[in-house]
Amino acid sequence: MAQKKRVAVKKSPLFGDEGMWLLNQIPRSRIRSRYGVLLDDHFGTRVMSAAVRLTNGGSASFVSSEGLIMTNHHVAHKLIASVSTAERDLVAQGFYAPRREDELKIPHAEANVLVSIEDVTERVLKAKASERKKVIAALELESKQKTGLRSDVVELYQGGAYHLYCYERYTDVRLVFAPEMAAASFGGDFDNYEYPRFCLDVTFLRLYDASGVPVKPRQRLTLVADAPTEESLLFVAGHPGRTDRLTTYAALMSARDHGLPYRLRSLARMEILYQQYAGRGSEYARRVEREMQTVMNLRKRYMGQRAALQDPVFMRRIEQRERAQKSLDPKPYATIERAVRTFEKHAVEYDLWESMIGYGGHYDKPSPMSSNWTTYLGIARTLVRMAAEDTKKSADRLPEFADARRESLLEALYSPAPIYSDLEEWKLADALSLLLETYGTEDATVQAILGGLSPMARARALIQRTTLGDPEVRKRIAEGGARALKTTTDPMIKLALLIDARARAVRTAVETQYKTPCDAAYARIAQLQFETFGTELYPDATFTLRLAFGTNKRHVADDTVMPPYTTIAGTYAHEVAHQAKRPWTLPLSWKRAARWGSVSQVPYNFITTHDSHGGNSGSPVFDKDFHCIGILFDGISSGQGSTFMYGEYERAVCVSSAGILALLAHVYKATGLLKELAR
Amino acid sequence: MAQKKRVAVKKSPLFGDEGMWLLNQIPRSRIRSRYGVLLDDHFGTRVMSAAVRLTNGGSASFVSSEGLIMTNHHVAHKLIASVSTAERDLVAQGFYAPRREDELKIPHAEANVLVSIEDVTERVLKAKASERKKVIAALELESKQKTGLRSDVVELYQGGAYHLYCYERYTDVRLVFAPEMAAASFGGDFDNYEYPRFCLDVTFLRLYDASGVPVKPRQRLTLVADAPTEESLLFVAGHPGRTDRLTTYAALMSARDHGLPYRLRSLARMEILYQQYAGRGSEYARRVEREMQTVMNLRKRYMGQRAALQDPVFMRRIEQRERAQKSLDPKPYATIERAVRTFEKHAVEYDLWESMIGYGGHYDKPSPMSSNWTTYLGIARTLVRMAAEDTKKSADRLPEFADARRESLLEALYSPAPIYSDLEEWKLADALSLLLETYGTEDATVQAILGGLSPMARARALIQRTTLGDPEVRKRIAEGGARALKTTTDPMIKLALLIDARARAVRTAVETQYKTPCDAAYARIAQLQFETFGTELYPDATFTLRLAFGTNKRHVADDTVMPPYTTIAGTYAHEVAHQAKRPWTLPLSWKRAARWGSVSQVPYNFITTHDSHGGNSGSPVFDKDFHCIGILFDGISSGQGSTFMYGEYERAVCVSSAGILALLAHVYKATGLLKELAR
Repeated sequence: MAQKKRVAVKKSPLFGDEGMWLLNQIPRSRIRSRYGVLLDDHFGTRVMSAAVRLTNGGSASFVSSEGLIMTNHHVAHKLIASVSTAERDLVAQGFYAPRREDELKIPHAEANVLVSIEDVTERVLKAKASERKKVIAALELESKQKTGLRSDVVELYQGGAYHLYCYERYTDVRLVFAPEMAAASFGGDFDNYEYPRFCLDVTFLRLYDASGVPVKPRQRLTLVADAPTEESLLFVAGHPGRTDRLTTYAALMSARDHGLPYRLRSLARMEILYQQYAGRGSEYARRVEREMQTVMNLRKRYMGQRAALQDPVFMRRIEQRERAQKSLDPKPYATIERAVRTFEKHAVEYDLWESMIGYGGHYDKPSPMSSNWTTYLGIARTLVRMAAEDTKKSADRLPEFADARRESLLEALYSPAPIYSDLEEWKLADALSLLLETYGTEDATVQAILGGLSPMARARALIQRTTLGDPEVRKRIAEGGARALKTTTDPMIKLALLIDARARAVRTAVETQYKTPCDAAYARIAQLQFETFGTELYPDATFTLRLAFGTNKRHVADDTVMPPYTTIAGTYAHEVAHQAKRPWTLPLSWKRAARWGSVSQVPYNFITTHDSHGGNSGSPVFDKDFHCIGILFDGISSGQGSTFMYGEYERAVCVSSAGILALLAHVYKATGLLKELAR
Repeated sequence: MAQKKRVAVKKSPLFGDEGMWLLNQIPRSRIRSRYGVLLDDHFGTRVMSAAVRLTNGGSASFVSSEGLIMTNHHVAHKLIASVSTAERDLVAQGFYAPRREDELKIPHAEANVLVSIEDVTERVLKAKASERKKVIAALELESKQKTGLRSDVVELYQGGAYHLYCYERYTDVRLVFAPEMAAASFGGDFDNYEYPRFCLDVTFLRLYDASGVPVKPRQRLTLVADAPTEESLLFVAGHPGRTDRLTTYAALMSARDHGLPYRLRSLARMEILYQQYAGRGSEYARRVEREMQTVMNLRKRYMGQRAALQDPVFMRRIEQRERAQKSLDPKPYATIERAVRTFEKHAVEYDLWESMIGYGGHYDKPSPMSSNWTTYLGIARTLVRMAAEDTKKSADRLPEFADARRESLLEALYSPAPIYSDLEEWKLADALSLLLETYGTEDATVQAILGGLSPMARARALIQRTTLGDPEVRKRIAEGGARALKTTTDPMIKLALLIDARARAVRTAVETQYKTPCDAAYARIAQLQFETFGTELYPDATFTLRLAFGTNKRHVADDTVMPPYTTIAGTYAHEVAHQAKRPWTLPLSWKRAARWGSVSQVPYNFITTHDSHGGNSGSPVFDKDFHCIGILFDGISSGQGSTFMYGEYERAVCVSSAGILALLAHVYKATGLLKELAR
C-alpha cells in the first residue's frame, strides 16, 4: 500500500482519541507514543477471538470459557422480544436462567466470530470496475467452500482496499440473563444520547455450536470491578456500523438541506403512528416497543447530525479539511456534487418504492425483508424478487440474493416471529396515504394499488386476505418460484408484483447515476488520502471488527466537565428528580433489594474518549490484559456530527463491569452467572 | 333576502340533524315537522341571553342567576393554567372555591353575551368591494359608541349577508370549580374524538361586572339529572368556530394534496418538540400541557379530514353536490381553482413569515400575538406593526389593529402570564432550523437572522438578551411608538423589524391573489345558493352563536351501534382495561370516594346527532324549557369531514348533567356549588 509519512499524522484532523482501526492494521506506534504501551504481535488476533458480532446490528464479547457472551440490552431487545409473549413479556420483566436447561433458544439470531482477515485488494482491483461484483462473489464462494466459514469481502477505504473476512457462524443463541427494560433503558428516549447516565444496558447470551455444545472461545475477557481511571489506556473492540468521514462538503450540504429534513419528517410521522398504536394498551405498547426505540434513537441521532451540519463552525472545519485534498484533484469532488444533485431528484421515489419508506435505511445497503409499508409486503417482495433473481447466476443477481447470503435470507423469510395484523393495517394505511400525498390521485401505480378504495379500506382488505402470515405458505411459494407466483391469489404478492418494476427502475437509476459515480469518486479521494497518510488513516466504519483506544476523561470541551462515572446511588437520585415517573421508574426488583450499603457507591456508568459509532453498542471496554471494565452502549448528542468528522465533543457512554457485578449479586441474585463470570 | 323554496330542503344534502342556525333565523317549521315542537317567538332571544362566548375559543352558558357559567375543562384549560404556579398546579390538582372570596380571578379572559343581532347587509353591500372593510369598521365603531357594547360585524354566507352582533363584554372572570385534568381528560389524546367516552370535561366560572358584582343573566339554564333519551328534541347553543361547507372540489383537492399534508408535518414536528420538552420533568410537562393538547387535537382532526378527503366515496359526494350548482355558473369555481393554485405557491412562505409557523392558523384570520416561533417574537411583531398601523386611520389598518379590537389586543399584549425562556429557546431554535431547511443558507433574510451563528446559538442569544418578558417594557415601547422602536436595542424587536417587510409582502400577495378573489367567488356561490335555498340553508360557522337541534341516538351509520350513554361504573372498567396507566389513571379524589352504590349507574357521557364543530366545546345541551341535560365537549373521528360536508357519521359527544351533579356531590363534596345550581 501507500507510503507512511510521519508528518501526516499532524495534518490529519485528530481530536481526542479518533480512530476505528482495522485489527490487521493496529496503530501500535501511535498507541505507544500516546500511552506508553507497546502491544505484542498477537494482540489483534486475541481481540478477534474475544469479539463477537451479532448480525442484527450490534457487538458482543466472550466473557466466560463456556460460550457466554455479553452485549447490550438494546442490542438484544429484538431477540428477547422474539422469545416473549403477551403473557410473558421478558423485555419488561427481565429474565434469568440459573441452569443451562432454563436458557431460551432464540429463533432468529446469528453471531459471528472473526477468524481471519486476508488482503484481496489486488485480486479485486485488477478486474474491470464492472466485473468487480462478480469477482467479489466468486472470492466469497471460493473461501466459503474451502473453509466452511462465512466469508465476506469487505470494501475498505471506499474501494481503496478489499479484505476477505472469515467468520465462524453460530445460530444457536440462547438467552441467559436480561434485566428489566426499566433498568436497562432507565430514562428512555429522554436520557438517550445524554450523560450522566444510569442504565443497566446489558444482556448475557450463550452461543452453542451446531451439535449443541457451548462454544469454547480461543480468548475470553474477564469482568473486573475496577473503577475507570483517567489516563489509563483502554480498548474498545466492536463493529461500528457506518461512518462517512470522507463525505464531501457538497454531499453534506445536501444531507443538511434535503436528506436529513426528509428523514426527520418520515421519522416524526412514524413516531406518532407508533405512539398512537402503543397508547391503546400495554400489550400494544409491547408489540412496538423496539420499533419505537429505533425510531426515537434515529430521530435523536439525525437531529444531532442536523445541528452539527447547521453549525457554521462545523461546516467551516469540513471545508478546511477538504480544501487541501481538493487542490490535488478537484474532479472527484465535482463528480460527487453532480451525483448528489441527481440523487436529490430520485430520493423520494427511491425511498417510497425501493426502500419502502426506509427511514433509516442506507441507500446502498438494501435490506430486502424490512419494509415500513408492512412486514407482509417485505415478505412478498422477497418472494417476488427471489424468483426473478434465481434465474440468474449468483454473481449477476441483486447482491442480497447472492448464494453466499441465502442462508441468512431464508432464515429471515421463514421466521415464525408473530406479525400483528392490526399494526400492519395501521402502517400500510399510513403508507398508502403517504403515496397519495406524494403522487396525488392521478398516478397510475397509486391508482392500481388503491383500486378505488380509501387507504384505510384498501389496507384492511390487503391485510385481511393475505396468507403470508404462515411461514409454510412462504416456503411453498419460495420453492415454487415463478410458477407459484403466477398461480397464487395472495393480494400482497400481487401488490409486490405491481410495484416491482417501478422500484427496480429507480434502484437502477440511483445505482448508475449516484452510487456508481460516487463510489468511484470516493475511491479516488481515498486513494489520494492513502498517498498522503497510508494506513495511518483508518477506513470508514463497515460493520466489521475495529479497535479503538482511549481513556476515561471528565473534560468534554473547554467549558464542560462531566463526572468520569456515575454511581448506583445516583440512579435513585435521578429517579427522585423525575418523581419516579416513567421512563424514570426503577423496577420492583430494585425496590425490593434492601441494605444497599457500600453497593450504592459502586461506579455505574462512565464516559470514555473512544471513537465509536452505531454498531459499537455492546463492545467491551478492556485493558491490554483483557480485563473488561465495562461495556459501551451509547454516545452523546453533541457528538452526532462524528458520522462525518470526529470532533472534540464526542464521548462514548459505558456500563461499568463493577456496576454489572454488583447488581447481578445484590438485585438479581444471579449466583450461577456470577460464578461463571469469575471462573 | 332571496326566495324560499320548500322543495330545496330535499335537494340540500342533509344527513342526521345537519345545521348550525342563526339565532335570528331559527328553522322553526323544520323543527316542528321533524320533532313536532313549535318554538315561540322569544326562544331565540332567550337562548342568546343564556349563552356565553369565551373569546379564547369556546362556548359556555349561565347555569345560575348569580353569574355562574359552565364550560369545558379543555376550554378553560388555559385560564386555569394562568392562575396555576409550579407549586400549585390547578390543572393537575383541580380547584374548588366554596365561598366567593376563594374564587380566583383570571388575569386574561373575556366573556361575551350576545344582546342583539341587526341585519346590516344592505349598508355593507351598497359600498364598493374595496370600501367594505372601511364601512364595516365604521359600523362597528358607531355601534360601540352608541351602545357601549362590543360590536362586531359578522360576514355570513361568505359575504352574502352581514349582521351586526352586539355583546356585553366581561373581563372579570373567576374560577369556581375545575376537576383534575386526569378526570376531565381521562384517556387523553388516545380517547380524544372517540366514543364511548368517560370524561368530566367541565369547569365552572363566574362572571362579574365592572363594579365587581356577579352578572345577573336575563336567562339561565337549570341542570337536571335526566338521562338522555332517544327521539326527544334537544338543542345545542354555542359558537362553532369555522366550517367550510361551500368549499369547492378543487379547493378540497388542494387541501388533500397540499394543505393538510403540510400542516400534519408541521404538527408532528411540533408534537415531538413539546414531548421532548415535557419529558424533562413534571414542571416542564405542566408548562406545555395545553399547547400539547392543542397540537394533538389538531393532529387528530386533520388526520380525520385527510382520511375523509382521501376517501373516493366522500369526494364523489362533494363532486355531486357541486355539479348542479356549477352548471348555473361555472365561473366562481374556475376562479377558486386558479386562486388555490396560486396560494399553493405562497403557502410555505406565508406560513413561515406571516403566520410564523401557524400550524393551526387560518389564512384569513391573522392572530397577531400567537407565534410558534416564540411568544417573544409575537409580542415584538405586535409592537412593530402597531406603531406602523397606528399612523393610519382605523379603517385603513390591518384589521387586527383596528380601534374596535384594541382593547382585547392590549390585554393580550400586556398580559403578565409567564413566558418560559428555556421553552422559548427550544421553539425558536427549531423554527430557525426549519427556516434553514426551507430556504437554505443563501437566503438573505435567513442569513441576516442567524448572523453567522447556528440556530441553537442564535436562539439562545436572542432569548437571553430580550427584555420583552417585562410587561412594563412592552407598554413603554407601545406608548413610545415608532420613536421607541428606533431607539430600542432589544434583539427581538430588531428581529421583528427585520422580517416584517417580507411577511407583509406575502400577506399582501395572499390577500390580493387568493383571499380577495376567493371571497368574491364564494360570495357568488353563496348568492346562487340563496337563490335556490334562501335561509333554509344555514351559513358556515363564524365563531358566533348558533343553534343546533337533534337528539340522542345509538345508531352511527348502518353497521355501527354505540351505547346512547356511558356510566360512571364504565369509567372504572375503562381504567382497568388500560391497567390504570396514564392517561387512564383516575385521580385520587375518585379513589378516596367510597360507597359508590347507585352513583355508579348514573349516565356519564352521551352522544347526540347535533351538528357541531370546534368552538362548540362547552355548549349546553338543553330542551325547549331550558333544562340542561349536559354539555358538549367533542365530536368523533369518523366525522372530521364535517368541516367540508355534514355526513351521517357525525356525532357530538357530551358530559351529562346527571354525571356532573353526581360527581360534584359524591367525589368533590361541592355542596355550595350544588346548592347554587339548584337554586
